[in-house]
Parts: sequence; C-alpha cells; structure tokens
Amino acid sequence: MIQVAIIGASGYTGAESIRILLRHNEAKLTYLTALPEECGAVEDVFPQFKGRCALQIEPLDLDKLSDLSDVALCCLPHKVSMGFVPKLLDAGLKVIDFSADYRLKDIAVYEKYYVKHTDTGNLKHAAFGLPELFREQIKGAKLVANPGCYPTGALLAIAPLLKKGLIETSSIIVNAVTGASGAGKNPSEKFHFPNMNENLFAYSIGNHRHMPEIEQIASDVSGKKITVLFQPHVGPFDRGILSTVYCQPRKNLSNEELLELYNDFYKAEPFVQVSKVAPAVKDVAGTNYCHIFVTNVKGRIVCFSAIDNLVKGASGQAIQNMNIVFELEETLGLI
Amino acid sequence: MIQVAIIGASGYTGAESIRILLRHNEAKLTYLTALPEECGAVEDVFPQFKGRCALQIEPLDLDKLSDLSDVALCCLPHKVSMGFVPKLLDAGLKVIDFSADYRLKDIAVYEKYYVKHTDTGNLKHAAFGLPELFREQIKGAKLVANPGCYPTGALLAIAPLLKKGLIETSSIIVNAVTGASGAGKNPSEKFHFPNMNENLFAYSIGNHRHMPEIEQIASDVSGKKITVLFQPHVGPFDRGILSTVYCQPRKNLSNEELLELYNDFYKAEPFVQVSKVAPAVKDVAGTNYCHIFVTNVKGRIVCFSAIDNLVKGASGQAIQNMNIVFELEETLGLI
Amino acid sequence: MIQVAIIGASGYTGAESIRILLRHNEAKLTYLTALPEECGAVEDVFPQFKGRCALQIEPLDLDKLSDLSDVALCCLPHKVSMGFVPKLLDAGLKVIDFSADYRLKDIAVYEKYYVKHTDTGNLKHAAFGLPELFREQIKGAKLVANPGCYPTGALLAIAPLLKKGLIETSSIIVNAVTGASGAGKNPSEKFHFPNMNENLFAYSIGNHRHMPEIEQIASDVSGKKITVLFQPHVGPFDRGILSTVYCQPRKNLSNEELLELYNDFYKAEPFVQVSKVAPAVKDVAGTNYCHIFVTNVKGRIVCFSAIDNLVKGASGQAIQNMNIVFELEETLGLI
Amino acid sequence: MIQVAIIGASGYTGAESIRILLRHNEAKLTYLTALPEECGAVEDVFPQFKGRCALQIEPLDLDKLSDLSDVALCCLPHKVSMGFVPKLLDAGLKVIDFSADYRLKDIAVYEKYYVKHTDTGNLKHAAFGLPELFREQIKGAKLVANPGCYPTGALLAIAPLLKKGLIETSSIIVNAVTGASGAGKNPSEKFHFPNMNENLFAYSIGNHRHMPEIEQIASDVSGKKITVLFQPHVGPFDRGILSTVYCQPRKNLSNEELLELYNDFYKAEPFVQVSKVAPAVKDVAGTNYCHIFVTNVKGRIVCFSAIDNLVKGASGQAIQNMNIVFELEETLGLI
Repeated sequence: MIQVAIIGASGYTGAESIRILLRHNEAKLTYLTALPEECGAVEDVFPQFKGRCALQIEPLDLDKLSDLSDVALCCLPHKVSMGFVPKLLDAGLKVIDFSADYRLKDIAVYEKYYVKHTDTGNLKHAAFGLPELFREQIKGAKLVANPGCYPTGALLAIAPLLKKGLIETSSIIVNAVTGASGAGKNPSEKFHFPNMNENLFAYSIGNHRHMPEIEQIASDVSGKKITVLFQPHVGPFDRGILSTVYCQPRKNLSNEELLELYNDFYKAEPFVQVSKVAPAVKDVAGTNYCHIFVTNVKGRIVCFSAIDNLVKGASGQAIQNMNIVFELEETLGLI
Repeated sequence: MIQVAIIGASGYTGAESIRILLRHNEAKLTYLTALPEECGAVEDVFPQFKGRCALQIEPLDLDKLSDLSDVALCCLPHKVSMGFVPKLLDAGLKVIDFSADYRLKDIAVYEKYYVKHTDTGNLKHAAFGLPELFREQIKGAKLVANPGCYPTGALLAIAPLLKKGLIETSSIIVNAVTGASGAGKNPSEKFHFPNMNENLFAYSIGNHRHMPEIEQIASDVSGKKITVLFQPHVGPFDRGILSTVYCQPRKNLSNEELLELYNDFYKAEPFVQVSKVAPAVKDVAGTNYCHIFVTNVKGRIVCFSAIDNLVKGASGQAIQNMNIVFELEETLGLI
Repeated sequence: MIQVAIIGASGYTGAESIRILLRHNEAKLTYLTALPEECGAVEDVFPQFKGRCALQIEPLDLDKLSDLSDVALCCLPHKVSMGFVPKLLDAGLKVIDFSADYRLKDIAVYEKYYVKHTDTGNLKHAAFGLPELFREQIKGAKLVANPGCYPTGALLAIAPLLKKGLIETSSIIVNAVTGASGAGKNPSEKFHFPNMNENLFAYSIGNHRHMPEIEQIASDVSGKKITVLFQPHVGPFDRGILSTVYCQPRKNLSNEELLELYNDFYKAEPFVQVSKVAPAVKDVAGTNYCHIFVTNVKGRIVCFSAIDNLVKGASGQAIQNMNIVFELEETLGLI
Repeated sequence: MIQVAIIGASGYTGAESIRILLRHNEAKLTYLTALPEECGAVEDVFPQFKGRCALQIEPLDLDKLSDLSDVALCCLPHKVSMGFVPKLLDAGLKVIDFSADYRLKDIAVYEKYYVKHTDTGNLKHAAFGLPELFREQIKGAKLVANPGCYPTGALLAIAPLLKKGLIETSSIIVNAVTGASGAGKNPSEKFHFPNMNENLFAYSIGNHRHMPEIEQIASDVSGKKITVLFQPHVGPFDRGILSTVYCQPRKNLSNEELLELYNDFYKAEPFVQVSKVAPAVKDVAGTNYCHIFVTNVKGRIVCFSAIDNLVKGASGQAIQNMNIVFELEETLGLI
C-alpha cells in the first residue's frame, strides 16, 4: 500500500485528489497539509467528505511527512511549489508536482511568464507527466511535473499529427473553453455566481501561461519548433475543457486516414478514447478520460478534445502518474 | 418628466433601476451616486450599459442632487440608509428607500434584528411600499419604504386569506427559494460559482430579518397578531423567488372559492396574475409581475407565488411606487 | 464475485448503476438488458463509458440472465416491473427493484396511485430497502423494493423523531426540491433546457405518488398512523434532493437534545451524516450520503436532509441493498 | 402607429418579438398567427405574458392580416417561409423574414444547403437586414431577409477589416459558442436539461448552414471572394453568442490602429459598441447590442463579438429593420 501525502490539500485539486484516493485499492492517504489558516478536519474543510475521511489537514511538518508518506502530491501554487519540492525530495519522497514550476525546461520562458526560478537543479530531472507521450520518463522519475489542464487537452488532441509531422508548424490555433472550477477556490468578482452564471467570455488574451507550455511540448513531440495561438475562454459550468484545435495539414489526409492514425496512436491508452463524433465535456466530467474527434474542414484539420480539468487536467492525471512511478496498474483509482 | 436620482447606484438594485428607467417615458435618470471607490462612467461600472447611458456615477453632493432631481431611489444598505434619508428629504426630494430602515414600525423589533434606529421621526411617516395593499398611503407619501423581496412574494401569496381572516394566525409556514442575485454583488465563498452552481441549501435558519417584516404586515392586513415560520433557501439561478406557503384554514374553502377570492382581490392589479397552475420563476424573470396559485392539499391551503427578486422584489416595485407617488400611470416603464 | 444484471439499463438509473459497479471490488456487471430499440454497445448508448465497459445492452433472455447473474437490479418503470420481477425470481435471482411496484403494502393505496397490482404474492415478501430502518428484513430478502428518491430523503430526515413518537402525527409538511435528473431521460417540454434552466417550480401538487409511500413508512416506523403533506419542486441542477421538513413536537426538545437524538440514532450508519449546519445538495452529489440537520424554529422542529436522487435516492441505495443481501461489506463500491 | 403582425408567433423568436413590441411606442401588435395546434391566447401559449397581452394566436387568415397590419414579422422556418412570403407581400404588407429563404443570393448555394427555391423572384429584391452594413438597401425594401444569428455576430466582428481589405481572404476561422435557446423550442435529446446542463460541445462540423451566409456577405463587403471556416458550439446557458474570429492580416496594424479603425467604422451605430476588453455574453443578454473587441495575437488578428442570439441575432434586429423600413427612430423599442 503506497502512502500518500497531499501538500496544499485545501484547494480544489486537493479535494479532487482526496476523492480519487479514497477509492484507490493500493494507495492510501496518510498526511494532508495546508497553510495554518486553512487547516482542520477534512470533513470541516470539505463537507463532502463527512464520514468518508477521518484525517486532519495540518501545517506541514517534514519529519512527520517523511515518516508517514512515500509520495507527495504537491498542490501548491506556482512559485510557492519550487520552495517546497526540494525539501520533499530531500525527505525521500517521490513528488508529483501540480504547479508550473517544473514544466518549462527553458528557464527564460519560465521567467518571462512566471518569476525567477529558484530550483533549476531539480527542473532538469523532472519528467513531464503526460503519460500518453512521456510514460517512459515518468516511470523512473523522482519528480513529475503534472501538466497544465489546457496543455493536456490541447496536446492530446494533436499529438498524433505532431508526431508524424503532418501539420504546418505555425498554423495551430487552440480555442478552448473551461469550466469555472479552473479558477480555483478563491471568490472573485468574475466568478461570483450572478456574474459567471449564464455568461461566457475570453480571458488572458494573447498571454495565457499555458501557451508556452503547449508550444514546448508540441515542439518536443514533433522535433520542430512549433508556435501556437492559444485562446482560453470560460463558461458557466463546473468541470471540463473543450479544446477545438485548427491546423493546416502539410499534405491531404482523408477522414479515414485521420481516424486510423489516431486509433493507432492511442490504441494502448486506457484514458484516451478516439470517437467518431464530437466529444462533449459532460461525458468526461468526473473521469480521467479524454475524448477526441478529428476531421477535415475546408482544407484544415480540426481536432476536438474533451477532458475534466480537475481530473485528467489535474488530480486524476497526477494519480495516473503516481501509479506509473510506483509500477502499479495505471488505472487504479481512476475507473 | 420626473427627474430621478439613484443613491447607491453601484449595486445590483442600482443597475436594475437604471435598466428600467432607461425605457420609462415620463421619468429620466439625472444623477447617480455611490461611494467614491465605486464611481465612474455608468458604462464602465456596468458594461451592460455601454452606449445606453452616458451618465457618471459620482460621490453624493446634496446641492447637486436637489438641483437635478425630484425623487431619490435610495439603494443604500440597512443602517446606512437612515443616515442619508433625512438629508434627502430635507433637500426636498421624495424618497423611495430600498433598505429595511423604514419598514418595521416596531422599533424594538427593528433594533433586535438590525441596529439602534436613528431616524424614528421619519419612520413614523413612511408608507410601506406594497401597492397592492397600501396604495392609498403611498400616494401621498414623501418617504416610501420599499418592501423586502421575500415579504413581497410571501405577502402577495396570502394577502386575500389574511384580509378575510380565513387562516389560523399561527399556522403560516413560508418556504421560499431565491436566486443568487439576492446575495448582492460582493463575492463570497458561498456564492463563488463552483460552490453555488448545481447547489441548493437553506440559510438564516430561524432568524432571517424578513421574518418580522412578514409578520408585521401580515398582522396589519389581518388585524390580528400573526406569527410566521419563514425559511429561505438559495438555488442555482440568477433571478426569482418561489414562495410556497402552507397554512391552516379556519373553515373549508373549495378550490373554486379560493380562486374566486384571489381573482376578486387582485382583479384591478396590473402586476399580480392569479393562475390555475403552479407558477414558475422563469415566467416572471425580468418583469414586475407576481404569479400566484392557491389550492387545498390535505386539509391545508397551499399558496405559491413567483416574483423576480430584483424587479417586483426591489427596483421594479420601487419604480411602481414612484409612479404612484407622482400620480403617473402605475405601469410606466414596467411593461 | 457477485454477478450482476441490470434489467432496463438504458435510463439514468441504469447508467448510474453501471458507474458505481465499475468500481465495486466484489461485484461485476455481467448482463445488461433493455427494450430492443434502446440496445447497443454500452459505450454507444452512454458515451461516458467509452473504454470503460465492453458490455452490450441486449434484449432480455431469461436463460442467459439466469446463467450469467446472481442478482438483478431491475430498473424498469412502475407497472412494467411487476410483469418481470416474478420471472427474475423464478430464474433464481435475487432482485433489487427500483419501481414502486413492491413498496406499498396496502394494495388499495397502490391501485389508487398506480394501476391494478398483478403480483401481490411477491409484494408480501418484499423488503423495503431503506437500510437505515429495515436492515434486518433486507438481509434475508429475495426481493428488495428500493425506495423512492423523495421518501429516502424525507424519511431519513425525520426517522429519529418518528421512532420516538416525538411529533404530532398529522403535523408533517415535507417541502422538497429535486434536480432535473429526477425526470428521467425522455425529453419533454418542461425539461427542455431553455425552459428548465434558470427556472424553479412546484409540480404534482397534492397528488405526488411518493406521498403515500412516505406515509406508509412513517406510520410503520412510528407505530401510529401518520399523514404527511408532501410538496415537490424541481430546480435547475442535475442531481440532488433537498428536503425541508416542518413538524410539530409533542414536547419541547432543545437543539442539543435533538442533535444527541439524531447522533445516537445514526451513529452506526455509514451513509447518514448528522451535521451542525444546513446541508447542501452539492456536498452529496455523486455520493450515497445523506446529510441531515435538525433544529427548533418558533415552536416547530425543522429537519433538513440532502441526498443525490440518483445515488442514495436510487442506484447507490440499490447497491447498498445488494451488498446487504449478499452479506458483503455494506459500503463496497459506494465510497 | 405601425400595426404589426407576427406570422409563426408560437416559437422563441415570436415570443421575443412580442416582448419587444409590448414596449415599442410607435408600433403595436395587431395580429398573431401559428399552426392550428399551437394557437390560443397569448398568455396560455406563453405564461410570461399573463396580463401583458390580450391577443389570441390564430390560424393565418390573409384578409384579416391585410386588414389589421402594415408589416409582418415572418418567423416561419426555412422552406416554409418562402411559401408564405409572396402572399404576405401580395397582401400589401412589408415583410421582415426570419428564415434563410431570402438571405442567400446564389440559388445553387441555397439549394445545396436547404431545398429547391420556389420564390426566386422575391429573392432578387430582398435586402439583407444587417443595418450596420446595408442600411440604405433596407430603407426602401418591401422584403428584408433578417440575418442568421451566427452571421450577425461573426460579420459585425470583422466587417471593418473586410471593408478595408485588411485580411487574407482564406484565413478566417470563426469559432462560436451559442446558448441553448438557439435550438428552438422543440424538446430533443441533446437539449434535455440533464444532458445539456453542465455540457459544451461542437456540432454541425464542417457543414453548418450559416457558413455560406457568412461567406456571401463577407465577400459582398470586401469585394473579393472570401472563404470562412465556421465552427459552432453550444453551451449551458440560455442566450448569447460569443464569436472568436481568427484571421491573418495582410499588413501589420497596431492594436491602436485596430481600435481606431473599429471606433471609426461603428461610430454612428447605436447598437455596436467597440470595447477595450473582451466582451461577455451576459452583458448583451436581453439587449440588441453587439460588443466587440479586436487585438493582435502572435501575428494574427483576433476579433471577439457578443450578441444575444434571440435579440440582435433575431427578433431585435428584425424590429430594428422594421424601424428603418418605416423611417422610425431606429432604436425604438430596443433600448
């Protein structure tokens, strides 16, 4: 039985990780931490766990952590995370990190979009935790950088095309719509119910932090420098990201060829389902699955993918990564 | 043309009042005020008014107010309002006050649920602005206390029964569900979209401030002391209050008699519609109408009413009151 | 490993049963049936199960059923169910029946609200599947009548009071609001998204079929004839029932006494959580839990309960019953 | 006072037209028609109009129509409409037609996406009712083809660029998300509340009927053949279309130049508001306004527009067209 700690357990990705781990047959929650002002019994912090989890969320104590846990799901925000991850690794734990701190290999890009990087040593060895593309690196990793929610959806939508070099490198437009849980748990004007309900709008126009992340991995996968225009929107629902990706093919592929390419690419993947119809976010809500559809439209290839931003886009994928790192069956806790 | 000021225009009831007044043929907005930090062009504070309203929201200047306006819609919160209303009256304006400060005639009750009352002089002369019950008092009033949203829905649902003394005085249970706009514009944890969406819960159990307001007016209307158990809930929609009122009849009335009683009571009322089926909040959303249905169930009378909490429950009713005070056609701006 | 069939698997309770059973460690789905026009691969009928369930939904074949299964979850509608249940029992299966056909012991009441009863023989032996009240009867049963969603929520809210005879027998008013999934999967005008969204209304006024079911069980539990005024409403969310139950105490109980009574009554129950605050439907959505709060308000006792209508109100409770019948750990698949 | 008939008044665009006309100071509803099975008192067909509209919806009688009305808002579906419009014109009425039957000037394109055209004579003379682009033609028209909802949003978003020839003719991608009222009033599986709520998906991939309409008008405006990739989606809200349009500039324009271009192009337009931030569908819901934002992102120009699909995308724009045809103030009834 793998013993799991969650660092920064008081937010939405913490709650989602708890939810999944409560039914994981070979891993158990042993230690939960948060800032002092967000500590308390799990069932007080998250009423949905009343009677389901008897743990306390406590301020982090590294000795206790290392006594109690084999692995840490580190749900801290960007910048904060890289202050803690070295300590977690030093304590002998494997770490699945939810922040952006270990995702961008190019420090200049990281520092442009975030802040000065303070743990470049570990950054070098971090695996990018998208199992469908980097399973081998994840297997042996001590530190896994769990991908962003948008990059997960966008990259799975186009990976087969990138891998085969089938699309023009500067033609990719990712238009995505996320549910409101993507904004995190802190109340704000935009996400106040009477403002967000019945609403839909674009945000972070031209400068969302997931844009360079998508570009880095797309370039890695294709072996060429890829640029991407990524435009996120938010809509009035809790969970899900629908990515609609437009790209220019380098040669004509029929819809049958596209379907075969995708089916072949993902045939061994438990969590990616290639579909013959447009995916719907509700079909993947609460699950670790990604549904994909790809087709030709007026000379372009259009790829659609749907994931749950909190599961395949965060906590589910983290536990999938944890399963891989510990050589457990990859789908444990995630069916 | 009546010249209208809105004091405290930066909240939801301010916005709703602006929306209605923009299409009022015999009243026009002339002056809008708010706290300094909430001032600015109307179209910046409320993007929905871009190109529709050229006014500024400004800090209150009493001289300017009295120069520009005949009437003030005072949208200030409880306690704050009674600090300003005397000044507005002294400036020669009629006042329609949205707060609770001039609704409760019994100062002890007011002070139990709110704070010490500092303007008991004007309180005595304020009319309670429920036109269907108090139109005559409103006509000559300088100060109208616009009713609470819940009392409006609950009282209209049972007024014909109260007036005729047809129900047991301590048997009334008002179970109400409001949309989330009732919480006002300030973000909070409960009303953060990912918390409020897909949710429904009771609040203010046993102690909501509208309970004594319902009791006072119910007692006035019936001429007997009425007690009411009022239980509010909030659901995942923007606008509307559905009140389900259970009461014990003092004598048997058939459903036909009940319908006739209600039809007769409300026959001259433009904004109250007695229905033969259960009302739905969506049918009254965005309007000043109240839909009512009444029937016998297992020895009790059950009354249902639906209103829009921001219109008949606030800004629409205020403008209905303004129309009455200025002897305009009562429905102006409200169709 | 218990082998489970679902009869009538193509509706919402079928889908929910599949979802739960996919992660049940000691039961597995072996056979799914539906009307011929609703058959097909599970992943075509329910896209949310793509890659998660390789079964077909097929027309019912009793030989195949009896070969493949130990128990049938019978998700057929009222009236249809009692035509099949005898055959399922004859085939040697245990049956958990979701319909109303085996819930009402008084045939006259059943026939008033439904149709002529055609299987009164099995009716006599059916256990009412509310484990918190009837666990012993369920243990040995061949046929379990899974309770209605509203009765589950309402009865759990007041069972401790009923059991101890603490409330007046004709004082109970159950005001409930359900999410829209309660209406089932067939499109209709009322549940067309642009009609149901942002809406809330009462329905089945005075004549909902769950009213006699609540009354029967309430009377059983209390040992006295109980009458209940039950008024359902529907709101714009998928899952959940919030029941607000008003009743008249026969003697005064402090809030502390009420809390102690409830804590004591439910202390061994895994799925009922007594709370110190008002329950919220979102906290129980997707789970088999019932959250309850009870308090005094103005001389009445008000009880609040929240359940997920598709889980504790249907499929989850059915699987809880199945676990009990087969002497498995009661919470299997349901955490 | 203009006398207005609505032909096909029983659907969502009929209801929205009624709502708007009830507060129009210089036009009044005189005659409403529908199929016999959808007739009845307005307040029975649409409970939201209880007490607000005393008219009946009746089967069409051409004599009565011509006696009672100066103009017909023809809300019939595609194909049906062109069977009636010639009769309405012959009866001496001006016609604002909501269907696609008079929008596409190229009959071959019409017949590819719809059916055989049976009224090509009137087609030639129909004005395309997008006032911001074709006001002069609308002024003298007897027949106005009211634009599709998506074309309205998409074309307003890019018209200034098209007019000045600033974008590559085959580079335009329109990614749009509509609210569910766009599906019309007939219940269907996809729009059943428990399916559509919390959902988002693409539809009509590669073949939506509004694609050729956008292309025709874009080509007209620019004087060059324009091709457009148009991809619609639907989300869980009632009203609104957010269009995100990606295009390739033919020469670099700074954001300041873009803003100036748009401000200049729309400076006299009452219903188009150029914004400095991303538009939100909620800000235009219930109004005839279009909010637009335009900016450079990574070498492309991205244009955002928000409209209400039932108002500026249908009934509001129809009444704007009616105002123009009858030389009334263009904004009457629409503020």
